[in-house]
Amino acid sequence: MTTVDKALSLLEYFSDLRPEIGLSEFARLSGFDKSAALRMLGALVRAGFVEQDAQSRKYRLGRSFLRFARMREEAFPMTQVLHPFAERIAVQTGETCHIGVFSAGTLAAGIVVLSPQSNRVHVAQGLNLPFHATASGLCFLAFSEPEEARRLLGEGPLEKYNAATMTDPKQVLSECQRFRAQGFSLSAANFDPDVKSVAAPIFDADGRVFATLALAAPMIRAHDSATIENGRLVCAAAMEATKAFAGDVPGWYAQIVTSLDKAA
Amino acid sequence: MTTVDKALSLLEYFSDLRPEIGLSEFARLSGFDKSAALRMLGALVRAGFVEQDAQSRKYRLGRSFLRFARMREEAFPMTQVLHPFAERIAVQTGETCHIGVFSAGTLAAGIVVLSPQSNRVHVAQGLNLPFHATASGLCFLAFSEPEEARRLLGEGPLEKYNAATMTDPKQVLSECQRFRAQGFSLSAANFDPDVKSVAAPIFDADGRVFATLALAAPMIRAHDSATIENGRLVCAAAMEATKAFAGDVPGWYAQIVTSLDKAA
Repeated sequence: MTTVDKALSLLEYFSDLRPEIGLSEFARLSGFDKSAALRMLGALVRAGFVEQDAQSRKYRLGRSFLRFARMREEAFPMTQVLHPFAERIAVQTGETCHIGVFSAGTLAAGIVVLSPQSNRVHVAQGLNLPFHATASGLCFLAFSEPEEARRLLGEGPLEKYNAATMTDPKQVLSECQRFRAQGFSLSAANFDPDVKSVAAPIFDADGRVFATLALAAPMIRAHDSATIENGRLVCAAAMEATKAFAGDVPGWYAQIVTSLDKAA
Repeated sequence: MTTVDKALSLLEYFSDLRPEIGLSEFARLSGFDKSAALRMLGALVRAGFVEQDAQSRKYRLGRSFLRFARMREEAFPMTQVLHPFAERIAVQTGETCHIGVFSAGTLAAGIVVLSPQSNRVHVAQGLNLPFHATASGLCFLAFSEPEEARRLLGEGPLEKYNAATMTDPKQVLSECQRFRAQGFSLSAANFDPDVKSVAAPIFDADGRVFATLALAAPMIRAHDSATIENGRLVCAAAMEATKAFAGDVPGWYAQIVTSLDKAA
């Protein structure tokens, strides 16, 4: 790890549950000593990637992210291109639809369209979607290169979020093979106890999965026939999203989706 | 400059006019040798702040910015809070309204609401707003600490965008004193030849200017009485935006805005 890697790794400690971090907490989380952490934070502050609260002296993500995100989106629109697909599926099904975007080892909820119903699945913008415990994560693994999937899972045991969470990487990978063959992944109570989700892959111009389109419903509304129908829907929408993004749908994947449509 | 500063400085070469940069171009722009630039780009790629195009081998801003921008906005909503003010002024006047956000030495168009008219001023999301040549920039200088303003302008001569652009930092600072006293800045043909803009400051919780609210009209519609009326509007809106953002409007600024309202 170079110094730059170390400095940038500090940003990964921020999350929706931990939006502000003090110097001692940074040192504790990262294992860097305080003076090294302070030096790295200084550079991040100067570049606007971190801000320090004048009163509490705690650090938070800075405004430069907004500027660079707008520049990236202006030059290579992604959110803008993918949003209508999530919107359409959410309207059509009345359930929450979200798109997970992969970047630097993390899959996070990039686009979220919440269900209009009162009893709905809530997904926060930017939420980290664990690979082994969410339909989105399992879908990403299923359509990645097997080596990449193994690397992302690591040695295990994996974090147990719920009774149904798989903690053995081998078991996860074997489930993923099944998901790959059927075109979409399925997760029931792996992450949240009362949520059932399906997810399908969005491919980039090189035919590599880089995002996932997921539909998440409260368990009580997710009976088996709805699950199959939802799987069919996310596959078709993800394939269209791939094309809209000028991505390349692998021939074998298009075939799976076609046969799903025929079976319906 | 630490290595981390150097690595992060590479990101500043991206702009709406230069969305992709090759390794040699990075070396030329930064003055770093190719192997050093490559090492730093490697760390930026690993963190997802830069992506490399598989075909052209050129670099572009990465997807991690989208993730961190969403996390920042979720925890500390700024775009969401400020957008309605730009929207209201654009609807009320029929002209383009934009909010410049300061971060790490740069003022950039963070929020843009375009005029509904065909002949309108276009401002790109993320556009860099030069301090000496735009109403937004001049407003930011006018309401910053004099020392900060001098530092941001540098030694000069400043870049000449147009016949009316001021290139002498001393002249810019003296104009800014006038703008500070009247509550808003004015720029006519400093940046674009056919555009006239006014801008007012948005203050943070410490009473420091961190953003500017600007109204930009085609010169042909911007007669003197409209300019004064627009100045009054942006001042009032910027003051309300400051309050909505839980910022602190300095007493003397509130007084200026009140006297503008009385004069109207």
